[in-house]
Amino acid sequence: MNQPSSSSSASISNLQNPLGSVRVVLSNTSHPGNIGAAARAMKTMGLSRLYLVSPKKFPDPEAVARAAGADDVLASAIVCTSLDQALEGAVFSVALSARHRNLGPERLQAREAAPLILEKAAGGEVALVFGNETAGLSNADVQRCQRTVFIPSNPEYSSLNLGAAVQLLCYELRLAAHDGRPSEISKTVPFRSPLATSDDVERFYVHLEHIMVDTGFLDPNQPKRLMSKLRRLFGRVELERDEINILRGILDAVGKKL
Amino acid sequence: MNQPSSSSSASISNLQNPLGSVRVVLSNTSHPGNIGAAARAMKTMGLSRLYLVSPKKFPDPEAVARAAGADDVLASAIVCTSLDQALEGAVFSVALSARHRNLGPERLQAREAAPLILEKAAGGEVALVFGNETAGLSNADVQRCQRTVFIPSNPEYSSLNLGAAVQLLCYELRLAAHDGRPSEISKTVPFRSPLATSDDVERFYVHLEHIMVDTGFLDPNQPKRLMSKLRRLFGRVELERDEINILRGILDAVGKKL
Repeated sequence: MNQPSSSSSASISNLQNPLGSVRVVLSNTSHPGNIGAAARAMKTMGLSRLYLVSPKKFPDPEAVARAAGADDVLASAIVCTSLDQALEGAVFSVALSARHRNLGPERLQAREAAPLILEKAAGGEVALVFGNETAGLSNADVQRCQRTVFIPSNPEYSSLNLGAAVQLLCYELRLAAHDGRPSEISKTVPFRSPLATSDDVERFYVHLEHIMVDTGFLDPNQPKRLMSKLRRLFGRVELERDEINILRGILDAVGKKL
Repeated sequence: MNQPSSSSSASISNLQNPLGSVRVVLSNTSHPGNIGAAARAMKTMGLSRLYLVSPKKFPDPEAVARAAGADDVLASAIVCTSLDQALEGAVFSVALSARHRNLGPERLQAREAAPLILEKAAGGEVALVFGNETAGLSNADVQRCQRTVFIPSNPEYSSLNLGAAVQLLCYELRLAAHDGRPSEISKTVPFRSPLATSDDVERFYVHLEHIMVDTGFLDPNQPKRLMSKLRRLFGRVELERDEINILRGILDAVGKKL
Protein backbone atom coordinates (compact mmCIF):
# COMPACT_ATOMS: atom_id res chain seq x y z
CA MET A 1 0.00 0.00 0.00
CA ASN A 2 1.37 3.39 -0.92
CA GLN A 3 0.37 6.98 -0.79
CA PRO A 4 -0.21 8.78 -4.07
CA SER A 5 2.95 10.08 -5.66
CA SER A 6 3.19 13.24 -7.62
CA SER A 7 1.48 13.09 -10.98
CA SER A 8 3.37 10.95 -13.39
CA SER A 9 3.35 11.71 -17.06
CA ALA A 10 3.24 9.30 -19.94
CA SER A 11 6.28 7.11 -20.03
CA ILE A 12 8.09 5.98 -23.12
CA SER A 13 6.83 2.46 -22.58
CA ASN A 14 3.17 3.49 -22.98
CA LEU A 15 3.30 2.90 -26.69
CA GLN A 16 4.63 -0.61 -26.34
CA ASN A 17 2.38 -1.53 -23.45
CA PRO A 18 -0.64 0.72 -23.11
CA LEU A 19 -2.11 -1.63 -20.48
CA GLY A 20 0.70 -0.47 -18.21
CA SER A 21 -0.74 3.06 -18.24
CA VAL A 22 -4.22 2.04 -17.18
CA ARG A 23 -5.27 2.65 -13.59
CA VAL A 24 -8.17 0.81 -12.08
CA VAL A 25 -9.79 3.12 -9.53
CA LEU A 26 -12.17 1.56 -7.00
CA SER A 27 -14.17 4.21 -5.21
CA ASN A 28 -15.65 3.63 -1.74
CA THR A 29 -15.46 -0.13 -1.96
CA SER A 30 -17.31 -1.81 0.93
CA HIS A 31 -16.01 -5.37 0.76
CA PRO A 32 -12.27 -6.04 0.88
CA GLY A 33 -12.90 -9.36 -0.90
CA ASN A 34 -13.93 -7.38 -3.96
CA ILE A 35 -10.67 -5.45 -3.86
CA GLY A 36 -8.78 -8.72 -3.90
CA ALA A 37 -10.94 -10.06 -6.72
CA ALA A 38 -10.33 -6.89 -8.71
CA ALA A 39 -6.57 -7.22 -8.22
CA ARG A 40 -6.66 -10.78 -9.47
CA ALA A 41 -8.87 -9.84 -12.43
CA MET A 42 -6.48 -7.04 -13.38
CA LYS A 43 -3.40 -9.19 -13.22
CA THR A 44 -4.90 -11.98 -15.33
CA MET A 45 -5.32 -9.41 -18.09
CA GLY A 46 -1.94 -7.75 -17.65
CA LEU A 47 -2.96 -4.65 -15.65
CA SER A 48 -1.27 -3.76 -12.39
CA ARG A 49 -2.09 -0.25 -11.23
CA LEU A 50 -4.78 -0.24 -8.56
CA TYR A 51 -6.05 2.94 -6.87
CA LEU A 52 -8.42 2.77 -3.92
CA VAL A 53 -10.49 5.79 -2.95
CA SER A 54 -11.54 5.62 0.72
CA PRO A 55 -11.95 1.85 0.91
CA LYS A 56 -14.02 0.78 3.89
CA LYS A 57 -11.52 -1.90 4.95
CA PHE A 58 -8.04 -2.04 3.52
CA PRO A 59 -5.65 -3.72 3.93
CA ASP A 60 -7.58 -6.80 4.95
CA PRO A 61 -6.89 -10.55 4.94
CA GLU A 62 -10.01 -11.14 2.84
CA ALA A 63 -8.54 -8.98 0.08
CA VAL A 64 -5.32 -11.00 0.15
CA ALA A 65 -7.24 -14.28 0.09
CA ARG A 66 -9.32 -13.31 -2.92
CA ALA A 67 -6.33 -11.84 -4.75
CA ALA A 68 -4.76 -15.31 -4.92
CA GLY A 69 -1.39 -14.78 -6.61
CA ALA A 70 -2.07 -11.12 -7.37
CA ASP A 71 -1.01 -9.88 -3.95
CA ASP A 72 1.69 -7.81 -5.64
CA VAL A 73 -1.08 -5.71 -7.18
CA LEU A 74 -2.58 -5.21 -3.72
CA ALA A 75 0.80 -4.44 -2.20
CA SER A 76 1.42 -1.64 -4.67
CA ALA A 77 -2.15 -0.29 -4.52
CA ILE A 78 -2.38 3.43 -3.91
CA VAL A 79 -4.89 4.57 -1.32
CA CYS A 80 -6.45 7.99 -1.89
CA THR A 81 -8.89 10.10 0.02
CA SER A 82 -10.68 11.52 -2.98
CA LEU A 83 -11.40 10.69 -6.60
CA ASP A 84 -9.52 13.87 -7.55
CA GLN A 85 -6.41 12.42 -6.00
CA ALA A 86 -6.81 9.11 -7.83
CA LEU A 87 -7.24 10.89 -11.15
CA GLU A 88 -4.27 13.18 -10.70
CA GLY A 89 -2.07 13.03 -13.75
CA ALA A 90 -4.58 11.07 -15.80
CA VAL A 91 -5.27 12.35 -19.30
CA PHE A 92 -8.46 10.39 -19.75
CA SER A 93 -10.90 8.60 -17.50
CA VAL A 94 -14.04 6.55 -17.91
CA ALA A 95 -16.77 5.88 -15.33
CA LEU A 96 -18.24 2.39 -15.21
CA SER A 97 -21.94 2.79 -14.78
CA ALA A 98 -25.01 0.89 -15.87
CA ARG A 99 -27.34 3.79 -15.18
CA HIS A 100 -28.35 6.48 -17.63
CA ARG A 101 -27.54 9.98 -16.44
CA ASN A 102 -29.14 12.90 -18.14
CA LEU A 103 -26.10 15.08 -17.95
CA GLY A 104 -23.42 12.43 -17.94
CA PRO A 105 -20.70 12.07 -20.55
CA GLU A 106 -21.18 10.05 -23.70
CA ARG A 107 -22.06 6.39 -23.03
CA LEU A 108 -20.14 3.61 -24.70
CA GLN A 109 -20.43 -0.13 -24.50
CA ALA A 110 -17.30 -1.73 -23.00
CA ARG A 111 -16.32 -3.27 -26.31
CA GLU A 112 -16.57 0.05 -28.15
CA ALA A 113 -14.74 1.85 -25.39
CA ALA A 114 -11.73 -0.46 -25.25
CA PRO A 115 -9.92 0.74 -28.39
CA LEU A 116 -10.52 4.36 -27.40
CA ILE A 117 -9.14 3.79 -23.90
CA LEU A 118 -6.05 2.15 -25.34
CA GLU A 119 -5.54 4.93 -27.81
CA LYS A 120 -5.53 7.42 -24.95
CA ALA A 121 -3.31 5.15 -22.86
CA ALA A 122 -0.68 5.19 -25.60
CA GLY A 123 -0.28 8.90 -24.88
CA GLY A 124 -0.67 9.16 -21.12
CA GLU A 125 -2.25 7.86 -17.97
CA VAL A 126 -5.86 6.72 -18.12
CA ALA A 127 -8.26 5.64 -15.40
CA LEU A 128 -11.20 3.23 -15.21
CA VAL A 129 -13.40 4.32 -12.31
CA PHE A 130 -15.66 1.84 -10.50
CA GLY A 131 -18.12 2.85 -7.79
CA ASN A 132 -19.38 1.32 -4.58
CA GLU A 133 -21.01 -2.14 -4.73
CA THR A 134 -24.43 -0.83 -3.79
CA ALA A 135 -24.57 2.85 -4.62
CA GLY A 136 -22.37 2.90 -7.70
CA LEU A 137 -20.84 6.25 -8.61
CA SER A 138 -22.35 9.62 -7.79
CA ASN A 139 -23.34 11.95 -10.60
CA ALA A 140 -20.47 14.19 -9.60
CA ASP A 141 -18.00 11.31 -9.90
CA VAL A 142 -19.33 10.30 -13.30
CA GLN A 143 -19.06 13.86 -14.50
CA ARG A 144 -15.39 13.91 -13.57
CA CYS A 145 -14.84 11.39 -16.35
CA GLN A 146 -14.77 11.82 -20.11
CA ARG A 147 -16.95 8.83 -20.93
CA THR A 148 -19.43 6.52 -19.25
CA VAL A 149 -18.88 2.85 -20.01
CA PHE A 150 -21.52 0.20 -19.55
CA ILE A 151 -21.41 -3.57 -19.74
CA PRO A 152 -24.32 -5.14 -21.62
CA SER A 153 -26.32 -7.36 -19.30
CA ASN A 154 -29.65 -8.98 -18.59
CA PRO A 155 -32.11 -6.08 -18.19
CA GLU A 156 -33.96 -8.08 -15.53
CA TYR A 157 -30.84 -8.64 -13.44
CA SER A 158 -27.92 -6.43 -14.23
CA SER A 159 -26.27 -6.77 -10.83
CA LEU A 160 -22.69 -7.44 -11.86
CA ASN A 161 -20.29 -8.11 -9.05
CA LEU A 162 -17.59 -5.42 -8.76
CA GLY A 163 -14.76 -7.88 -9.39
CA ALA A 164 -16.65 -9.28 -12.38
CA ALA A 165 -17.07 -5.80 -13.87
CA VAL A 166 -13.35 -5.13 -13.44
CA GLN A 167 -12.65 -8.51 -15.04
CA LEU A 168 -14.82 -7.80 -18.08
CA LEU A 169 -13.41 -4.37 -18.78
CA CYS A 170 -9.81 -5.51 -18.33
CA TYR A 171 -10.55 -8.42 -20.66
CA GLU A 172 -11.88 -6.08 -23.32
CA LEU A 173 -8.75 -3.96 -22.98
CA ARG A 174 -6.50 -6.97 -23.29
CA LEU A 175 -8.28 -8.19 -26.41
CA ALA A 176 -8.22 -4.73 -27.92
CA ALA A 177 -4.51 -4.38 -27.09
CA HIS A 178 -3.80 -7.65 -28.81
CA ASP A 179 -6.12 -6.76 -31.65
CA GLY A 180 -8.69 -9.38 -30.71
CA ARG A 181 -6.80 -11.98 -32.66
CA PRO A 182 -6.18 -15.33 -31.11
CA SER A 183 -3.21 -14.63 -28.93
CA GLU A 184 0.26 -16.05 -29.06
CA ILE A 185 -0.94 -19.14 -27.20
CA SER A 186 -3.15 -20.42 -29.95
CA LYS A 187 -0.55 -19.92 -32.62
CA THR A 188 1.15 -23.11 -31.57
CA VAL A 189 -0.35 -25.72 -33.81
CA PRO A 190 -2.11 -28.52 -31.96
CA PHE A 191 -1.05 -32.07 -32.61
CA ARG A 192 -2.00 -33.12 -36.12
CA SER A 193 -0.56 -35.69 -38.38
CA PRO A 194 -0.49 -34.90 -42.12
CA LEU A 195 -3.81 -35.06 -43.90
CA ALA A 196 -4.62 -38.25 -45.72
CA THR A 197 -4.48 -38.07 -49.49
CA SER A 198 -7.69 -38.45 -51.39
CA ASP A 199 -6.60 -41.81 -52.77
CA ASP A 200 -5.98 -43.06 -49.21
CA VAL A 201 -9.48 -41.94 -48.35
CA GLU A 202 -10.93 -43.64 -51.40
CA ARG A 203 -9.24 -46.91 -50.47
CA PHE A 204 -10.77 -46.59 -47.02
CA TYR A 205 -14.25 -46.20 -48.52
CA VAL A 206 -13.77 -49.28 -50.70
CA HIS A 207 -12.56 -51.25 -47.70
CA LEU A 208 -15.47 -50.07 -45.55
CA GLU A 209 -17.96 -50.95 -48.28
CA HIS A 210 -16.56 -54.50 -48.55
CA ILE A 211 -16.85 -55.02 -44.81
CA MET A 212 -20.41 -53.70 -44.78
CA VAL A 213 -21.36 -56.06 -47.57
CA ASP A 214 -19.60 -59.03 -45.96
CA THR A 215 -21.37 -58.48 -42.65
CA GLY A 216 -24.73 -58.11 -44.39
CA PHE A 217 -25.19 -54.49 -43.31
CA LEU A 218 -25.09 -53.21 -46.88
CA ASP A 219 -27.14 -54.98 -49.52
CA PRO A 220 -25.29 -54.32 -52.81
CA ASN A 221 -28.59 -54.72 -54.67
CA GLN A 222 -30.23 -52.08 -52.53
CA PRO A 223 -27.40 -49.81 -51.45
CA LYS A 224 -29.72 -46.82 -50.95
CA ARG A 225 -27.63 -43.79 -50.03
CA LEU A 226 -25.50 -45.44 -47.41
CA MET A 227 -22.12 -44.76 -48.98
CA SER A 228 -23.12 -41.18 -49.73
CA LYS A 229 -24.00 -40.65 -46.11
CA LEU A 230 -20.72 -42.14 -44.92
CA ARG A 231 -18.82 -40.02 -47.43
CA ARG A 232 -20.57 -36.96 -46.10
CA LEU A 233 -19.59 -37.95 -42.55
CA PHE A 234 -15.92 -38.65 -43.19
CA GLY A 235 -15.65 -35.89 -45.77
CA ARG A 236 -16.46 -33.29 -43.11
CA VAL A 237 -13.65 -34.37 -40.84
CA GLU A 238 -10.62 -34.07 -43.11
CA LEU A 239 -9.09 -37.34 -42.08
CA GLU A 240 -5.44 -37.44 -41.17
CA ARG A 241 -3.06 -40.13 -42.32
CA ASP A 242 -2.82 -41.67 -38.85
CA GLU A 243 -6.58 -41.76 -38.59
CA ILE A 244 -6.98 -43.53 -41.90
CA ASN A 245 -4.43 -46.07 -40.66
CA ILE A 246 -6.47 -46.66 -37.51
CA LEU A 247 -9.73 -47.01 -39.41
CA ARG A 248 -8.15 -49.37 -41.96
CA GLY A 249 -6.65 -51.34 -39.07
CA ILE A 250 -10.08 -51.80 -37.50
CA LEU A 251 -11.52 -52.92 -40.82
CA ASP A 252 -8.63 -55.39 -41.28
CA ALA A 253 -9.20 -56.84 -37.81
CA VAL A 254 -12.92 -57.20 -38.52
CA GLY A 255 -12.24 -58.78 -41.94
CA LYS A 256 -10.04 -61.47 -40.41
CA LYS A 257 -12.92 -62.56 -38.16
CA LEU A 258 -15.48 -62.88 -40.94
CA MET B 1 -31.27 -28.36 -5.96
CA ASN B 2 -32.67 -31.06 -8.16
CA GLN B 3 -31.67 -34.41 -9.47
CA PRO B 4 -31.07 -34.73 -13.21
CA SER B 5 -34.19 -35.35 -15.20
CA SER B 6 -34.38 -37.47 -18.29
CA SER B 7 -32.63 -35.98 -21.31
CA SER B 8 -34.60 -33.14 -22.81
CA SER B 9 -34.56 -32.45 -26.50
CA ALA B 10 -34.38 -29.11 -28.25
CA SER B 11 -37.43 -27.01 -27.53
CA ILE B 12 -39.14 -24.69 -29.94
CA SER B 13 -37.99 -21.72 -27.93
CA ASN B 14 -34.30 -22.46 -28.58
CA LEU B 15 -34.36 -20.40 -31.74
CA GLN B 16 -35.76 -17.35 -30.01
CA ASN B 17 -33.56 -17.63 -26.96
CA PRO B 18 -30.51 -19.79 -27.48
CA LEU B 19 -29.09 -18.65 -24.11
CA GLY B 20 -31.91 -20.63 -22.52
CA SER B 21 -30.44 -23.85 -23.92
CA VAL B 22 -26.98 -23.30 -22.50
CA ARG B 23 -25.97 -25.30 -19.44
CA VAL B 24 -23.10 -24.17 -17.27
CA VAL B 25 -21.49 -27.31 -15.85
CA LEU B 26 -19.15 -26.86 -12.89
CA SER B 27 -17.16 -30.00 -12.25
CA ASN B 28 -15.76 -30.83 -8.82
CA THR B 29 -15.92 -27.27 -7.54
CA SER B 30 -14.11 -26.90 -4.21
CA HIS B 31 -15.41 -23.56 -2.97
CA PRO B 32 -19.16 -22.98 -2.63
CA GLY B 33 -18.52 -19.23 -2.96
CA ASN B 34 -17.45 -19.84 -6.53
CA ILE B 35 -20.69 -21.67 -7.24
CA GLY B 36 -22.59 -18.62 -6.01
CA ALA B 37 -20.41 -16.28 -8.05
CA ALA B 38 -20.99 -18.41 -11.14
CA ALA B 39 -24.76 -18.31 -10.60
CA ARG B 40 -24.66 -14.52 -10.33
CA ALA B 41 -22.42 -14.23 -13.39
CA MET B 42 -24.79 -16.42 -15.39
CA LYS B 43 -27.89 -14.50 -14.42
CA THR B 44 -26.38 -11.11 -15.26
CA MET B 45 -25.93 -12.39 -18.80
CA GLY B 46 -29.31 -14.10 -19.06
CA LEU B 47 -28.27 -17.72 -18.46
CA SER B 48 -29.99 -19.83 -15.83
CA ARG B 49 -29.18 -23.52 -16.15
CA LEU B 50 -26.52 -24.59 -13.68
CA TYR B 51 -25.27 -28.18 -13.37
CA LEU B 52 -22.92 -29.19 -10.57
CA VAL B 53 -20.87 -32.35 -10.83
CA SER B 54 -19.87 -33.62 -7.38
CA PRO B 55 -19.47 -30.22 -5.73
CA LYS B 56 -17.44 -30.41 -2.54
CA LYS B 57 -19.96 -28.37 -0.54
CA PHE B 58 -23.43 -27.65 -1.85
CA PRO B 59 -25.83 -26.30 -0.84
CA ASP B 60 -23.90 -23.89 1.35
CA PRO B 61 -24.60 -20.44 2.84
CA GLU B 62 -21.45 -19.07 1.16
CA ALA B 63 -22.89 -19.97 -2.25
CA VAL B 64 -26.11 -18.12 -1.43
CA ALA B 65 -24.20 -15.09 -0.15
CA ARG B 66 -22.09 -14.78 -3.29
CA ALA B 67 -25.04 -15.43 -5.60
CA ALA B 68 -26.63 -12.18 -4.39
CA GLY B 69 -29.99 -12.00 -6.18
CA ALA B 70 -29.28 -15.06 -8.30
CA ASP B 71 -30.40 -17.54 -5.67
CA ASP B 72 -33.06 -18.79 -8.09
CA VAL B 73 -30.23 -20.10 -10.30
CA LEU B 74 -28.78 -21.92 -7.30
CA ALA B 75 -32.18 -23.25 -6.24
CA SER B 76 -32.75 -24.84 -9.63
CA ALA B 77 -29.18 -26.14 -9.97
CA ILE B 78 -28.96 -29.80 -10.88
CA VAL B 79 -26.48 -31.85 -8.91
CA CYS B 80 -24.90 -34.76 -10.77
CA THR B 81 -22.49 -37.49 -9.80
CA SER B 82 -20.67 -37.61 -13.13
CA LEU B 83 -19.92 -35.43 -16.11
CA ASP B 84 -21.80 -37.96 -18.25
CA GLN B 85 -24.92 -37.21 -16.27
CA ALA B 86 -24.48 -33.47 -16.67
CA LEU B 87 -24.02 -33.82 -20.44
CA GLU B 88 -26.97 -36.13 -20.96
CA GLY B 89 -29.11 -34.83 -23.78
CA ALA B 90 -26.57 -32.20 -24.83
CA VAL B 91 -25.76 -32.02 -28.54
CA PHE B 92 -22.62 -29.92 -28.14
CA SER B 93 -20.24 -29.19 -25.32
CA VAL B 94 -17.12 -27.12 -24.84
CA ALA B 95 -14.44 -27.53 -22.20
CA LEU B 96 -12.97 -24.38 -20.69
CA SER B 97 -9.28 -24.97 -20.41
CA ALA B 98 -6.18 -22.85 -20.69
CA ARG B 99 -3.90 -25.83 -21.15
CA HIS B 100 -2.84 -27.38 -24.43
CA ARG B 101 -3.68 -31.06 -24.72
CA ASN B 102 -2.08 -33.07 -27.46
CA LEU B 103 -5.15 -35.08 -28.30
CA GLY B 104 -7.80 -32.64 -27.18
CA PRO B 105 -10.48 -31.17 -29.41
CA GLU B 106 -9.94 -28.05 -31.48
CA ARG B 107 -9.09 -24.95 -29.41
CA LEU B 108 -10.98 -21.72 -29.86
CA GLN B 109 -10.71 -18.38 -28.19
CA ALA B 110 -13.86 -17.49 -26.21
CA ARG B 111 -14.82 -14.78 -28.67
CA GLU B 112 -14.53 -17.08 -31.66
CA ALA B 113 -16.38 -19.84 -29.85
CA ALA B 114 -19.42 -17.78 -28.85
CA PRO B 115 -21.21 -17.66 -32.23
CA LEU B 116 -20.57 -21.35 -32.74
CA ILE B 117 -21.98 -22.21 -29.32
CA LEU B 118 -25.09 -20.15 -30.01
CA GLU B 119 -25.57 -21.73 -33.39
CA LYS B 120 -25.55 -25.16 -31.75
CA ALA B 121 -27.82 -23.92 -28.95
CA ALA B 122 -30.41 -22.93 -31.53
CA GLY B 123 -30.77 -26.62 -32.32
CA GLY B 124 -30.42 -28.34 -28.97
CA GLU B 125 -28.89 -28.35 -25.54
CA VAL B 126 -25.30 -27.22 -25.21
CA ALA B 127 -22.92 -27.29 -22.26
CA LEU B 128 -20.02 -25.16 -21.09
CA VAL B 129 -17.84 -27.30 -18.84
CA PHE B 130 -15.61 -25.74 -16.17
CA GLY B 131 -13.18 -27.75 -14.05
CA ASN B 132 -11.98 -27.61 -10.48
CA GLU B 133 -10.35 -24.38 -9.23
CA THR B 134 -6.94 -25.95 -8.84
CA ALA B 135 -6.80 -29.01 -11.05
CA GLY B 136 -8.98 -27.85 -13.93
CA LEU B 137 -10.46 -30.55 -16.11
CA SER B 138 -8.97 -33.99 -16.70
CA ASN B 139 -7.94 -35.02 -20.20
CA ALA B 140 -10.83 -37.48 -20.18
CA ASP B 141 -13.30 -34.70 -19.35
CA VAL B 142 -11.90 -32.46 -22.08
CA GLN B 143 -12.16 -35.28 -24.59
CA ARG B 144 -15.84 -35.65 -23.79
CA CYS B 145 -16.34 -32.20 -25.33
CA GLN B 146 -16.32 -31.11 -28.97
CA ARG B 147 -14.18 -28.00 -28.50
CA THR B 148 -11.75 -26.56 -26.02
CA VAL B 149 -12.30 -22.88 -25.27
CA PHE B 150 -9.67 -20.63 -23.77
CA ILE B 151 -9.79 -17.09 -22.47
CA PRO B 152 -6.86 -14.92 -23.55
CA SER B 153 -4.90 -13.82 -20.53
CA ASN B 154 -1.59 -12.63 -19.21
CA PRO B 155 0.85 -15.45 -19.97
CA GLU B 156 2.68 -14.66 -16.73
CA TYR B 157 -0.45 -14.97 -14.61
CA SER B 158 -3.37 -16.65 -16.22
CA SER B 159 -5.04 -17.70 -12.97
CA LEU B 160 -8.61 -16.64 -13.69
CA ASN B 161 -11.05 -17.14 -10.86
CA LEU B 162 -13.72 -19.73 -11.69
CA GLY B 163 -16.56 -17.23 -11.33
CA ALA B 164 -14.65 -14.77 -13.52
CA ALA B 165 -14.20 -17.38 -16.24
CA VAL B 166 -17.93 -18.15 -16.15
CA GLN B 167 -18.61 -14.41 -16.29
CA LEU B 168 -16.42 -13.86 -19.34
CA LEU B 169 -17.80 -16.73 -21.35
CA CYS B 170 -21.43 -15.85 -20.52
CA TYR B 171 -20.68 -12.25 -21.51
CA GLU B 172 -19.32 -13.34 -24.86
CA LEU B 173 -22.43 -15.44 -25.41
CA ARG B 174 -24.71 -12.55 -24.52
CA LEU B 175 -22.92 -10.19 -26.88
CA ALA B 176 -22.95 -12.74 -29.65
CA ALA B 177 -26.66 -13.40 -29.04
CA HIS B 178 -27.62 -9.75 -29.10
CA ASP B 179 -25.53 -8.19 -31.79
CA GLY B 180 -27.76 -9.56 -34.54
CA ARG B 181 -25.09 -11.61 -36.26
CA PRO B 182 -25.78 -15.07 -34.85
CA SER B 183 -29.31 -15.17 -36.23
CA GLU B 184 -28.00 -14.18 -39.66
CA ILE B 185 -25.34 -16.83 -39.42
CA SER B 186 -27.80 -19.52 -38.49
CA LYS B 187 -30.02 -18.60 -41.41
CA THR B 188 -27.24 -19.43 -43.82
CA VAL B 189 -26.43 -22.76 -42.21
CA PRO B 190 -27.50 -25.53 -44.56
CA PHE B 191 -30.07 -27.97 -43.32
CA ARG B 192 -28.62 -30.73 -41.19
CA SER B 193 -30.31 -33.54 -39.40
CA PRO B 194 -30.32 -33.09 -35.62
CA LEU B 195 -27.02 -33.56 -33.86
CA ALA B 196 -26.50 -36.67 -31.80
CA THR B 197 -26.57 -36.13 -28.05
CA SER B 198 -23.42 -36.60 -26.06
CA ASP B 199 -24.81 -39.73 -24.41
CA ASP B 200 -25.57 -41.24 -27.84
CA VAL B 201 -22.00 -40.52 -28.84
CA GLU B 202 -20.68 -42.07 -25.63
CA ARG B 203 -22.66 -45.24 -26.29
CA PHE B 204 -21.14 -45.36 -29.75
CA TYR B 205 -17.62 -45.12 -28.29
CA VAL B 206 -18.38 -47.93 -25.84
CA HIS B 207 -19.76 -50.07 -28.66
CA LEU B 208 -16.77 -49.32 -30.90
CA GLU B 209 -14.35 -50.15 -28.10
CA HIS B 210 -16.08 -53.52 -27.51
CA ILE B 211 -15.84 -54.42 -31.17
CA MET B 212 -12.19 -53.42 -31.32
CA VAL B 213 -11.44 -55.58 -28.30
CA ASP B 214 -13.46 -58.53 -29.64
CA THR B 215 -11.65 -58.43 -32.98
CA GLY B 216 -8.29 -58.20 -31.25
CA PHE B 217 -7.50 -54.75 -32.68
CA LEU B 218 -7.48 -53.15 -29.25
CA ASP B 219 -5.59 -54.84 -26.45
CA PRO B 220 -7.34 -53.72 -23.26
CA ASN B 221 -4.09 -54.24 -21.37
CA GLN B 222 -2.25 -51.96 -23.75
CA PRO B 223 -4.87 -49.54 -25.00
CA LYS B 224 -2.28 -46.86 -25.74
CA ARG B 225 -4.08 -43.77 -26.94
CA LEU B 226 -6.38 -45.43 -29.40
CA MET B 227 -9.67 -44.28 -27.88
CA SER B 228 -8.33 -40.75 -27.47
CA LYS B 229 -7.44 -40.64 -31.14
CA LEU B 230 -10.83 -41.95 -32.18
CA ARG B 231 -12.53 -39.44 -29.90
CA ARG B 232 -10.53 -36.70 -31.50
CA LEU B 233 -11.61 -37.89 -34.95
CA PHE B 234 -15.32 -38.25 -34.23
CA GLY B 235 -15.32 -35.23 -31.93
CA ARG B 236 -14.30 -33.04 -34.86
CA VAL B 237 -17.12 -34.25 -37.04
CA GLU B 238 -20.10 -33.43 -34.80
CA LEU B 239 -22.00 -36.57 -35.51
CA GLU B 240 -25.64 -36.33 -36.44
CA ARG B 241 -28.26 -38.63 -35.06
CA ASP B 242 -28.67 -40.45 -38.39
CA GLU B 243 -24.94 -40.96 -38.63
CA ILE B 244 -24.71 -42.46 -35.17
CA ASN B 245 -27.46 -44.86 -36.18
CA ILE B 246 -25.51 -45.92 -39.25
CA LEU B 247 -22.27 -46.38 -37.30
CA ARG B 248 -24.03 -48.33 -34.57
CA GLY B 249 -25.71 -50.44 -37.26
CA ILE B 250 -22.34 -51.33 -38.77
CA LEU B 251 -20.99 -52.26 -35.34
CA ASP B 252 -24.08 -54.41 -34.68
CA ALA B 253 -23.65 -56.22 -37.97
CA VAL B 254 -19.98 -56.83 -37.21
CA GLY B 255 -20.78 -57.99 -33.68
CA LYS B 256 -23.20 -60.65 -34.96
CA LYS B 257 -20.45 -62.20 -37.05
CA LEU B 258 -17.91 -62.45 -34.26
